[in-house]
Amino acid sequence: MQTMRSFLQELECPRCHHRVAADRLQTVCPQCQGPLFSRYALGELKQHMDKAELRLRRKGLWRWFELLPLQDARFMVTLGEGDCPLVQLTRLGERLGLTHLWLKDESLNPTGTFKARGLAVAISRAKELGAQRVIIPSAGNAGGAAAFYAARAGMEACVVVPVNTPRENLRECQAAGAKIIQVKGTLRDAGKLVQEISQREGWFDLATFREPYRLEGKKVMGLEIAEAFHWRLPDVIIYPTGGGTGLVGMWKAFEELRDLGWLEGERFPRMVSVQAKGCAPLVRAFENGQDQCQVWQGARTIASGLCVPKSFADREILQVLYQSRGTAISVEDEEILQAGRELAHTEGIFAAPEGAATLAGLKKLIARGFISPADRLVLFNTGTGLKYLSVTA
Amino acid sequence: MQTMRSFLQELECPRCHHRVAADRLQTVCPQCQGPLFSRYALGELKQHMDKAELRLRRKGLWRWFELLPLQDARFMVTLGEGDCPLVQLTRLGERLGLTHLWLKDESLNPTGTFKARGLAVAISRAKELGAQRVIIPSAGNAGGAAAFYAARAGMEACVVVPVNTPRENLRECQAAGAKIIQVKGTLRDAGKLVQEISQREGWFDLATFREPYRLEGKKVMGLEIAEAFHWRLPDVIIYPTGGGTGLVGMWKAFEELRDLGWLEGERFPRMVSVQAKGCAPLVRAFENGQDQCQVWQGARTIASGLCVPKSFADREILQVLYQSRGTAISVEDEEILQAGRELAHTEGIFAAPEGAATLAGLKKLIARGFISPADRLVLFNTGTGLKYLSVTA
Repeated sequence: MQTMRSFLQELECPRCHHRVAADRLQTVCPQCQGPLFSRYALGELKQHMDKAELRLRRKGLWRWFELLPLQDARFMVTLGEGDCPLVQLTRLGERLGLTHLWLKDESLNPTGTFKARGLAVAISRAKELGAQRVIIPSAGNAGGAAAFYAARAGMEACVVVPVNTPRENLRECQAAGAKIIQVKGTLRDAGKLVQEISQREGWFDLATFREPYRLEGKKVMGLEIAEAFHWRLPDVIIYPTGGGTGLVGMWKAFEELRDLGWLEGERFPRMVSVQAKGCAPLVRAFENGQDQCQVWQGARTIASGLCVPKSFADREILQVLYQSRGTAISVEDEEILQAGRELAHTEGIFAAPEGAATLAGLKKLIARGFISPADRLVLFNTGTGLKYLSVTA
Repeated sequence: MQTMRSFLQELECPRCHHRVAADRLQTVCPQCQGPLFSRYALGELKQHMDKAELRLRRKGLWRWFELLPLQDARFMVTLGEGDCPLVQLTRLGERLGLTHLWLKDESLNPTGTFKARGLAVAISRAKELGAQRVIIPSAGNAGGAAAFYAARAGMEACVVVPVNTPRENLRECQAAGAKIIQVKGTLRDAGKLVQEISQREGWFDLATFREPYRLEGKKVMGLEIAEAFHWRLPDVIIYPTGGGTGLVGMWKAFEELRDLGWLEGERFPRMVSVQAKGCAPLVRAFENGQDQCQVWQGARTIASGLCVPKSFADREILQVLYQSRGTAISVEDEEILQAGRELAHTEGIFAAPEGAATLAGLKKLIARGFISPADRLVLFNTGTGLKYLSVTA
């Protein structure tokens, strides 16, 4: 087996195509303030390795080292994230008239949510590039993941949360020894305060898409799905979308795999964003055919991870939805709770409300005729229901 | 790759060596009421497969199908359990003067605890052999795991809990749609009620060691450790011991691997049981050189999984401790809480109190001179700290 090395080349803004060096800490595009995407020397990588080798490596996200930004494995900050199971939902599928229904259960990550993936990679890379303390706005699970990965890295962490954040999340951040600042308002207000503190006091800002590497960690969900489906991508992916890093990340993964020549077949999945009725900026923009979102006023839902009034990467998300011939759909909190009970009682999955929302969304998509019975479908459960006992029980 | 098949032959009581057929539902030894252990055709298995193949299989507990009791994979009830990470604790090791300190983080199982392993296998096999509803006594996490795996299997579940069970565990059982019965008293009292209900109403009893197959699921922790250490077993394993299925299961795994000729080197680990000062029947028996435990009166600890006044398999646990030149040690609740903070702040591990107890125990073992600086040591975190917010936060 070859030594693993990263094929990261540089960073590129997908909006203005400005390119910047990847060998130092970067935040957003210095030219247009868009997000920065990692670009890899895929042609070279293609020569260097065979995809069959991936199966032989120790399980987890870091199997994909060549497609990740970290240069020196000694800076790897890991708690065993990644390679979460793809669980077949046979009985639920039968009930819904679907023959190929799967759920990617991201609750089996460290800290119980998919946030572990992005923060493992972002914090590893930030440490490698010299950051000493990190700050993050969070409406729920990102804060806990940042706090624990920072502790693992030996870095200080500060989490800025809206006051209505579930108490489980606050306690988790406390348990990791992070500083916590509560702000009145939404995640957007928390994000503004993070930027102020970051600029004033030199904490490195880990907010969604305000540094390039959480995206790379989330991307691995797409790589794992491709591998699990034997490199022939599923037909539909239904994803609960708040900040949207996972959605954009998976699409980026599929493009990289295509460029590597590793995919069987040419079809990409139709990508579906599910949001809550009480905070559905992407759904509104999608239905109006717009290429960016308006800030959602009065955002409110029990699915705290969906309480994002406007994602920083709204344009990139919408572009994926349009390009994939996907859609965006919103569901009521009551439908989310009902879907959560159904997942638990029928399939033994204790989903976060965000995860349950994908089942609620699926039902609406079936009613609309968006789904065919033979479609190979993947739902996402982004976290464990254990973190929401105070809102769902 | 060969088709996987189980090499289960029969069941044997380790106390009186009575043997019974494995092709029907069994509980305890009909002759002496001891536990029943699964025996495999290891000589035949040795001819049939090469251990290198295991790495190529889809991750999780069921990679070890040949050494598990299930006959027909269609009855497999799985949520992606097993293959939890072995996390190196470098900084904590340095602080303690140890060069090879690891933690097996079982919180990355479905339902957030190692209980998933035993119940995945027990419920799969019970289903295969015709059980339709299951009942279990639980002081904490076993109930939740039983409830979710039963839901996944399409079986009814009933969980009988002592009144002081953490509310997170009750809510989890409720979420899975299980019936819950609360009893005044300890896990022992819950166990008695379970036996009554089981006999009277025909619910299949999943209590620790009262059916043979939870042991087989837990055994896989030992198989995974052997594989992760390249088949040369670690020097010391420190395990929080309530019912003790994991401890006895790992030892059984090591014996099976030895008989298969798969181990490098002949040394087995010294096995250490950690208990809470408020419920330490094994420690008392071990210190008195006894071969079984007295029932602990007034059991009380925040580590609810350790609140077991007398394990059903006390003799088998004590035998492993003696035979391995291990020991048993007890720690105060305050030491557990302190160790939990240290694990979180130093290594980013959000451990259950039972898991934190192993670090508290390790410190005492160092002080006693039981540990050498170069020993390869494995601690066990048996569950996620998220389930104990009401007792630790």
